[in-house]
Amino acid sequence: MNNFIFHSPTKVYFGRGYEKQIGSLLKEHGFKKPLLVYGGGSIKRSGLYDAVTASLKEAGLTYAELGGVQPNPLLSLAKKGIELFRAEGCDVLLAVGGGSSIDTAKVIGLGVPYDGDVWDFWCGKADPKTGIPTVVILTIAAAGSETSESAVITNEDGMLKRGRNSIFNRPLFSIMNPELTYTLPAYQTACGIVDIMMHTLERYLTLPGEVELTDRIAEAVLKTVREYGPIAIDHPDDYEARAELMWAGSLSHNDLTGCGHASVFINHKIGHELSAKYGTAHGASLAIAFPAWAKYCYRYNIPRFAQYAVRVWGCEMDYANPEATALAGIVATEVFFRSIGMPVRLSDIGVGEAELDDLANRITSGGTGTVQTYIDCGKKEFLDILRLAL
Amino acid sequence: MNNFIFHSPTKVYFGRGYEKQIGSLLKEHGFKKPLLVYGGGSIKRSGLYDAVTASLKEAGLTYAELGGVQPNPLLSLAKKGIELFRAEGCDVLLAVGGGSSIDTAKVIGLGVPYDGDVWDFWCGKADPKTGIPTVVILTIAAAGSETSESAVITNEDGMLKRGRNSIFNRPLFSIMNPELTYTLPAYQTACGIVDIMMHTLERYLTLPGEVELTDRIAEAVLKTVREYGPIAIDHPDDYEARAELMWAGSLSHNDLTGCGHASVFINHKIGHELSAKYGTAHGASLAIAFPAWAKYCYRYNIPRFAQYAVRVWGCEMDYANPEATALAGIVATEVFFRSIGMPVRLSDIGVGEAELDDLANRITSGGTGTVQTYIDCGKKEFLDILRLAL
Repeated sequence: MNNFIFHSPTKVYFGRGYEKQIGSLLKEHGFKKPLLVYGGGSIKRSGLYDAVTASLKEAGLTYAELGGVQPNPLLSLAKKGIELFRAEGCDVLLAVGGGSSIDTAKVIGLGVPYDGDVWDFWCGKADPKTGIPTVVILTIAAAGSETSESAVITNEDGMLKRGRNSIFNRPLFSIMNPELTYTLPAYQTACGIVDIMMHTLERYLTLPGEVELTDRIAEAVLKTVREYGPIAIDHPDDYEARAELMWAGSLSHNDLTGCGHASVFINHKIGHELSAKYGTAHGASLAIAFPAWAKYCYRYNIPRFAQYAVRVWGCEMDYANPEATALAGIVATEVFFRSIGMPVRLSDIGVGEAELDDLANRITSGGTGTVQTYIDCGKKEFLDILRLAL
Repeated sequence: MNNFIFHSPTKVYFGRGYEKQIGSLLKEHGFKKPLLVYGGGSIKRSGLYDAVTASLKEAGLTYAELGGVQPNPLLSLAKKGIELFRAEGCDVLLAVGGGSSIDTAKVIGLGVPYDGDVWDFWCGKADPKTGIPTVVILTIAAAGSETSESAVITNEDGMLKRGRNSIFNRPLFSIMNPELTYTLPAYQTACGIVDIMMHTLERYLTLPGEVELTDRIAEAVLKTVREYGPIAIDHPDDYEARAELMWAGSLSHNDLTGCGHASVFINHKIGHELSAKYGTAHGASLAIAFPAWAKYCYRYNIPRFAQYAVRVWGCEMDYANPEATALAGIVATEVFFRSIGMPVRLSDIGVGEAELDDLANRITSGGTGTVQTYIDCGKKEFLDILRLAL
């Protein structure tokens, strides 16, 4: 077991009705004026926007707002938010939505107290020293950003999609009412399911070195999502299924599933480039990346891939041929992704062989970078992986 | 799934060597003078005391100290600590030890800023409004107090052992180096194993109402302890086994294993009275309470006890007779407790039938109180349970 530091201080209010307490909860914490950050019209159509603003007014709070956050959120909007926050004299960020709204709020939170260009934190030029607190009302089980230290943003200058971890990115508190996810379309629900599984698998299918408790918690998340994901797609207003997914989303990415392990997030690296270049939804991009990456890398840790197959997918262990079991688990994952309507091949999103060279360049910082997964993966290895995704 | 609030903000430094950084970590947080709280001579014999005080001095910190904490720690010592903390002008509590030292520190932490009698918080007369932060260097995997909101103390006036939950009881940060548990005797290791399992089971074997993810995380903790507990007893310096137990101890009691569930802690109620009256070690008292309680209560939730038997102990499901499976899980637990050297009957600690009436009175506030577990348990029901423990 590797040494690790675990620190997930976000307070979670989980269950029905908490969003109606947002005004009094912010007031209790001494805040006076939140900047609401949200996406398109869905929170207005669903009535959530009205419920939230009514609760703020009832608590005697004023607010400013930044709408229009899009999937794969853009740096330019976050920069607009930084200016707005300062101009309006806000004191807290209130993200109402999913990972895109939350991450936009987190970027604003790091940017407001910083004199330089907030992108400095994402391109590795500077480390955040402080941040404005973010508070969340979650509307999709997926990114785990409601408790994570991660924030992902896309810089339109070069369409660079990058993540940044910081303790200041951990939301102060998050309100998670599964009912708020009832209106999600099946495709977005499925994207969330893949995202949750991948946050877990990026930490689970790592180098040799077992952490039994961490493994079993990761398997708990995966088995729960496997069981309740399809129920949530078939019955969008099944409270229990939505609740299981929502809690799984947080626990998959608050670091609990990685304690004592190395983690690489190599599938996210591939997925981010697909999203940046083709606008592929984040979950869908991961559903394409994983089967290819896994088929390329399983041979470096057959026992772990076999454990995954047996414990998560209920495959029978082939004691005489563990490699067969390892492969069965990868196939089971791919079949599952497809069963919930996800693309699992580049061809499913219209990308062919001619595109691979550019994609591999983007993943490896122009063809020169490497990522250590089981082996050092440079451009050549990523090309091999991408070919498996064709 | 019930609504729940989850908030476990303690920062965990897990692994080798962190205890040597205690001075600089306290300094980073702006503290100047900790009050060290510890037990008997073991931390002096092991060299931990020297390592900690050397680290404090190296960071330029002074300190005061309160030694002599005993198992089932006493209110009188904590009150002495409150006076000492104030007189010495300390600004943080540093517990070095296990649950007893940590809980003593927590009592001091609530008592220092309070004008009244600190027992007020434990007898229900008052609610804490603030607290002095507690920092922990853990030396035993058991109580989970290093991340929990709970503190248990015994008031010698009536030998009342009582617990109190408060967010101010959550340690600011905890250092957990599994090597520090190598010197624990087998009996104490076994007591810790039972305590970890019972913190989980008190939340898991509750009223009908499934939370799949919470259940599976609870099972992850139980299976990990089941596998690594005996290894730690046989090989006290097996790092991996000690590490699995140590992390399991924290996760069993930081509330993660209870999210969305009701929890009752009825076995703790019985165990606390055995400890208060006979000085029985906490873990041992729970090993006696559980089999009796479970044999009395399983009938009210046979599916859940069957799930426990199958998923945690690997019992075969008897589909035609689930009750047999439910009972098999209880027997498996009892056999496991005995296999690691725990008492599982009152007679194992020399307590006979003549004592039951007084014990049942103590558990039920003089014979008049009730505790809601699957059914309302009053004096009559506790007598029935205790008879099953004879």
